[in-house]
Formats: sequence, structure tokens, C-alpha cells
Amino acid sequence: MEIDEMESGVVNGSGGGGSFRRARCWELLCSAAGMLWGKVVGFARKLGRIARDDPRRVAHSIKVGLALTLVSVLYYVRPLFNNWGVSTMWAVLTVVVVMEYTVGGTLSKGLNRACGTLAAGFIAVGAHKVAYLCGDKAEPVLLAVFVFLLSSAATFSRFIPEVKARYDYGVTIFILTFSLVAVSSYRVDELIRLAHQRFSTIVVGVGTCLCTTVFVFPVWAGEDLHRLAIGNLNKLAEFFEGLESECFRENATFENLEAKPFLQVYKSVLNSKATEDSLCNFAKWEPCHGKFKFRHPWSQYQKLGALSRQCASSMEALASYVITLTRTEYPEARPELRSEVRTACRQMSLHSAKALRELSAAMRTMAVPPSPANAHMSAAAKAAKDLRDELEDADLAQAMHVAVVASLLSDLVTKAKQITESVGTLARLARFVKNNDHENNADDKDIAAIDAVS
Amino acid sequence: MEIDEMESGVVNGSGGGGSFRRARCWELLCSAAGMLWGKVVGFARKLGRIARDDPRRVAHSIKVGLALTLVSVLYYVRPLFNNWGVSTMWAVLTVVVVMEYTVGGTLSKGLNRACGTLAAGFIAVGAHKVAYLCGDKAEPVLLAVFVFLLSSAATFSRFIPEVKARYDYGVTIFILTFSLVAVSSYRVDELIRLAHQRFSTIVVGVGTCLCTTVFVFPVWAGEDLHRLAIGNLNKLAEFFEGLESECFRENATFENLEAKPFLQVYKSVLNSKATEDSLCNFAKWEPCHGKFKFRHPWSQYQKLGALSRQCASSMEALASYVITLTRTEYPEARPELRSEVRTACRQMSLHSAKALRELSAAMRTMAVPPSPANAHMSAAAKAAKDLRDELEDADLAQAMHVAVVASLLSDLVTKAKQITESVGTLARLARFVKNNDHENNADDKDIAAIDAVS
Repeated sequence: MEIDEMESGVVNGSGGGGSFRRARCWELLCSAAGMLWGKVVGFARKLGRIARDDPRRVAHSIKVGLALTLVSVLYYVRPLFNNWGVSTMWAVLTVVVVMEYTVGGTLSKGLNRACGTLAAGFIAVGAHKVAYLCGDKAEPVLLAVFVFLLSSAATFSRFIPEVKARYDYGVTIFILTFSLVAVSSYRVDELIRLAHQRFSTIVVGVGTCLCTTVFVFPVWAGEDLHRLAIGNLNKLAEFFEGLESECFRENATFENLEAKPFLQVYKSVLNSKATEDSLCNFAKWEPCHGKFKFRHPWSQYQKLGALSRQCASSMEALASYVITLTRTEYPEARPELRSEVRTACRQMSLHSAKALRELSAAMRTMAVPPSPANAHMSAAAKAAKDLRDELEDADLAQAMHVAVVASLLSDLVTKAKQITESVGTLARLARFVKNNDHENNADDKDIAAIDAVS
Repeated sequence: MEIDEMESGVVNGSGGGGSFRRARCWELLCSAAGMLWGKVVGFARKLGRIARDDPRRVAHSIKVGLALTLVSVLYYVRPLFNNWGVSTMWAVLTVVVVMEYTVGGTLSKGLNRACGTLAAGFIAVGAHKVAYLCGDKAEPVLLAVFVFLLSSAATFSRFIPEVKARYDYGVTIFILTFSLVAVSSYRVDELIRLAHQRFSTIVVGVGTCLCTTVFVFPVWAGEDLHRLAIGNLNKLAEFFEGLESECFRENATFENLEAKPFLQVYKSVLNSKATEDSLCNFAKWEPCHGKFKFRHPWSQYQKLGALSRQCASSMEALASYVITLTRTEYPEARPELRSEVRTACRQMSLHSAKALRELSAAMRTMAVPPSPANAHMSAAAKAAKDLRDELEDADLAQAMHVAVVASLLSDLVTKAKQITESVGTLARLARFVKNNDHENNADDKDIAAIDAVS
């Protein structure tokens, strides 16, 4: 080390102390550069992963660039520019705001924008004429009153669920256009020409967006919704398959069960509602495309999604029960009973999984679910019924239901306890005040009373 | 009837046939008007209900009107208008687009808009200078290339989850401003003055929004998030209370259980994720207010929400089990066992409900959860443990776990069956093709194979 330093000192032709300091600086710089480089590489990897996860995202980004470049060409073309003037920027603005990931999204926003502008333009011109008739003094006051009333009413209409779901953006644009036209009328005389310009530039912008979004790698919300439903079915099937292989097979060990992926797979199904609702909303705006005809029953996908989420809910309950079971001790039931129950459980899981896989395959090809799906489902139901009969024969049924309710309830108690702990953490982190005037004795009595009453 | 018609005929001084026709017309008109009136009344009632559900909605609508009227006053003030020219409309535009329901939402959008505009303005001016240096011919081409590259890159960055969550709007505004400034530079010479104007009008718009939203009936996202968490706790408590009174009390009849509200109450908890995420995102932008200090642990609310939803999931499983139970037959377990289990279940439900109510009360006053909450939770856990021991004594434990898993699984089979039916309905409504080349025999063999193997 020291020799190295001396050498570098000699080479640089300066004293040892200075070279040491310089070497340290260099080292620090190198490590900082290395860290920065590491961050850059990490970020690039992240971007790569996002792109690989769904290459359509790259296509979408390029499409937005393309649409914007196309619309900015308007500025080159002198005759067009002379005709529209500064209004050309509305076309650029429209492209940026309207261009959405899916065709349905773009169409919904584009139509909302066009209709909102048109309606607001007409009403604003009317309002302006009314205000003009009332004289010079009253005109600005009246227009301000109109702006206040209409924007308040329109804003309130956005709280109506149906409007919120489908026309939220249109109402925003309505308020926007109305205010702009009403306000600008104080100065600009050629009101109608302005409204006309604004509307035609918006139509050009929306048109550019639609052409780009429909003709260059289109992403259909309907297709994505369809794929989401298929994915959900596959995830549910995966849970059944995992259950079968990890819990009910002859040599199932229940070992390290918590880390198994099949016990996590249903979770994304539980959280699919928001995506599903927005895709369904957009899909309703889309024209027929591919295998999706006009008036495709999109709302049926929401019903299917709700059922899938209910199923995932039950899976969560079962998964958490299975995990607590293996965490404590695995019960050694009577061997003959255990083997019977296991066989029945295995059949239920396998048949359900097969049925769900058949359904997802049928959905993928958009074919009527083949009879085997129903046959598997019936076989699963039959296994369930047989098991129930079996358990009845085994003189267990009379206690079984009680036991199930009691077990589920004690599972709920565990969950409630976790909630208590979480609120405790929140109270600590947010420094909630300590409330000492609570009489503990009274509450002890309360607890004793509950225990006595029941 | 006839006399009436004749009379009206006489009064009108025309023939019976004409009066009859007129009377019919009148009737039709009346009924149409009545129907219209009914619709109007229904719509008005709906609006009234929306307003009553949350009176802050009315306040928000008025606030938007107020902010817009305030900003349109800018047009009256001649010195201001002369200085900014047409750019004043950016202030109006900003108010319409930035004004959100909550303070956090407005702040997040406003800051995003201001920062996006500022960053894009600087870069656009730089790009313009670079393009200018490359000569007259290359300038428009280079600018178009810049627009394409930057808008594509910015659009892709919106797919990064962190950007999507907090800066989505800022990126949109970045693309918008960059394109506008870059494009307008073809014609307008005073580029920097334009960028400056645009930025200052946006600041005025954002300032107007913030003043209105903070000082006139402010709606804080943080407060709403806090209230949502409290509401969720109360709903979970309500389920436990309902369970206790309807299922485990001495005189519980299990009658008409499906219609009971407590079996529906947890459903809104299950769907609270989207609202919670957006409120949490907005709350992070808000300054300290009321009881919420700077750096309040907002993400803890998301953790609490996730636990609440898990609990609601388990409730769904229990609810669907209890309903199927009552639909088929209520098992007559051994009386002494039944009474013991019922007592234990009653204690678990009551204690959990009390604990959750204590927690929600503590959250409301922002006090550390009082010791009774923990005491109740411990009592519930003790009841659960006692029950488990009890059942072990009753020589049931060995079969109980198996029975629980089997029951939950057969519940899952029921759910999977519903999914099958739902896909069938979808196939019918969407007219999926019938696929007859599937060999049914093979699948029968498949089913037989599963049954044989297990």
C-alpha cells in the first residue's frame, strides 16, 4: 500500500500527502460514479422489465410520438395555419390529452371532448347573445353569473354515478369551453368563428388520435378485458392444482407451505375490480373488432369477475386456514377417515381445476364450453356430496357444521387481532394521545358481563 | 263516459268524432307530460339524495363556480389583460382542470402542472436554440424529431408505477407544454415571453384553486382516509354483532338470514382498495392540518386497509357457509356440545365486536387504543382457544380440521360451479361457436382416470 502511494507520488511529481489526498478524492469519485452507474443500470433494467412485461407499452409510446408529430405538421402547412391561426394549438393539446392506451379509452375521451365542446359552444354563444341584449353595463356581470351557475351545476352533475362513469371528461370539457368562450367574448368579437375554429381543430386532433390508435398496433380494451377474465380463471385453477399436489397427494408433506406460489396466486384476482371496471367501461365504446361483435355482452364479464373474486375470497379463507393448520400441528385423524377424506378432497380439487382450465381454454378460442367442463364440475360436486354422506355415515356430520363455523370464527378472531395490532402501530407512529381517564375497572366488568351472559 | 264526451263536444262546438280524437290526444299529452314529470321528479330526488349523502359535494360545486368566476375577473382588469393577452385563458383552463374534490388532489395536480410546465418550458427553449443553430432548413425537421423523441420517452415513463402513481398528470403537462412551445416556435418569435406568460398564468390559476379549496370548506383527503378506516372497522364490528344476535343467541332462529343487512355490510370493505389508494396518494401531498401532523404515517392506513379486507374476505367465506347451512338443514348436534360451542362462538363474536368498536372510537378521537380493546381481543382469543381445547376433549379435534378443510373446499366447488354457469351464460349471450370436434369419450376417460388415481 505505502509503496503504491509513494510510487504514485513519484509519478505525479508531488509530495506524499498531496498524492494521498488526490488518491482519496479519486477513490471517492470512482465510488460515486460506480454508485451512479449502478443506479442507472438498475433503472435501465427496470425500464427493460416494464417493456418486456407488455411490449405494447413501447408501441403506445411510439404511437403518441407519431400522432403528435403528425399534428404538428399542421403548422408547416401554411394555408391551414393561416385559416386557423393560434387555434392550431388546440389540435396539439387534444392529441396529448385524448391519446389513451386502449382504443376504447381514446374513443371515449375523443367523443366526450368533441361533444362537450360542441354543446358548450352552442350554449355559450346563446348566453353571450342574451347578455348582449341586456346592455353594456349588465353584460359582463350577467356572463359572470352564467359562468358561476353553469360550472357549479355541471360540477355537481359529475357526482351522479352514471355521469361519473362515462361522461366525466366530457363535463370537464363542457365547463372549460363554456368558460373560455363566455370569458373571451369580452374582447374577441368574432365569437362564432372562434367556437368554430376550436371545434374543427379538436376534430382534427381526435381524428389523428383515432387513426393512430386504430391503425397502428391497436390495443382493444375489450380484448384486454377478455384476457383478464381468462387469466383469472387460470389463476383459480392454479390454486386448485397446487392444493391437490401439495396437500392431498399421497406423499404430500405440507412442508414450507407458506412459500408456495399457489397460495399467493389468487391475490391478484381479489384486486382486479378496478382494472376490470375501467376496461369494461372502455370496451363499451369500441366498435366491433376481431371476434368481438357489435353489442358484445361486456357487463357479463363484470358478473364473471365478481364471481371469480368471491371464489378468490373463499380461497383466501381456505389458504389462511391451511397455513395455520400446518403452523400448529397436523391432526392425526383416524387413518381410514383421513384417507377417505383426502381422496374426496383430491377429486374435488382436480375436477374443479380441470373444469376451470377447460373454461379458460374455451374462452380463449371463444367456443361454447365443451361438455367435459360440465362433466368435471358435476364430478367435483358429486365428490363433495359423497364426502358429506361419508362424513354423515362416520357419525361426524352432526358436529361438523358446528366445528366449521367455530373454526372460521376463530380464524376471524385472529384477523381481528392483527387489526388491533395494526391500529396500535398506527397510534404509535402517528403519536396518538394517551387517554388515561378511561376506567379500566368498568371494562373489566364489561368483559366479565359478556362472559357471564353468554 | 259517453255523456262527458258529448258534453265536451257540445262545449267545443264540434262533432263527436273530432272531440273524441281531441280528447284522446289530450289524454296522450297528459300521460306523456305526467311521465316526463315523473322522470323529472325522480331525477330531482336522485340529485337530492346525492347532495344529502355528502353535502360537501354541493360545497365543492359552488367552490368550482367561485374559482372560475374569480379567475374570469382577470379579463375585466385591463392592465393585467394587456400584459398577458390571450394567455389569460390558460388561467381559466388551469382552474377547470386542476380543481379537485380534495385539497391533496388539487395540490398534487397544481404542483404537477406548474412543475411540468416549467421543466418543459426550459427544455423546449433549449431545443429551439439547438435547432436554430442548425440552420433554416434543418430547424423544423429537428424540432419534429425532438417532439417525437421526447413525447415517446415521456409517455413510456408513465408506465413506471411510481411515476404513474404520483406524477402522471405532470408528465402529460410536460408533453403538452413541450409540444406547444416547440411547435409554436415556427411562427412566434417571442418564445421566452410566451413561456413566461404561460407559466405565470398557470401559477395564477393554481393559486386561485388553492385559495378556494383551502379556505372555503376544505375537504382533506387525509381526513377522508382516516374516516374510511374508521368506517371499515365499524362495518367489521357490525358483522360480528349481527352474527352474535342472529346466530349464536339463545333464541336465534336463523330465519330469513340472507336478507339480514349484516351479511352484506362487509362487501363495501372488500371494494375499498381503489378509493383508499387514491386518498392515500392525495393525503401525502397535503400540509399538516387539524390533528394530522407533518409526516403522518399515511401508508399505515393502507396496511390497516389490507388487513380489514382480508378480514372481510374471511367474513364472506363464513357468511356464504352460514347461508348454505340454513338453506339445507340445520344440524342437530349433541345438545350439550351445541350449547358449549354456541357460548364460545357468542363470546368470540361479542368480544371481537367490542374490541373493533373500541378501536374505531379510539381512531375517531385519535387516542391510543385503550386497554379494554386489547382485553376484549385477548378474551376473544381465549374463548377461541378454550373452544379448541373443549372440542379436543370432546374427541372431535382429530376430525375437525379435516372436516373444516373438506367443507371449505366443497364451498369452493359451489363457487366454481357458479363460475361455470356464468361462462355458459357469456357463451350464450356472445354467441360463442360450438366446437363439436372435442372427443367426449376421451374426457370421460380423463374423469374416470382422476377418480381411479385418487
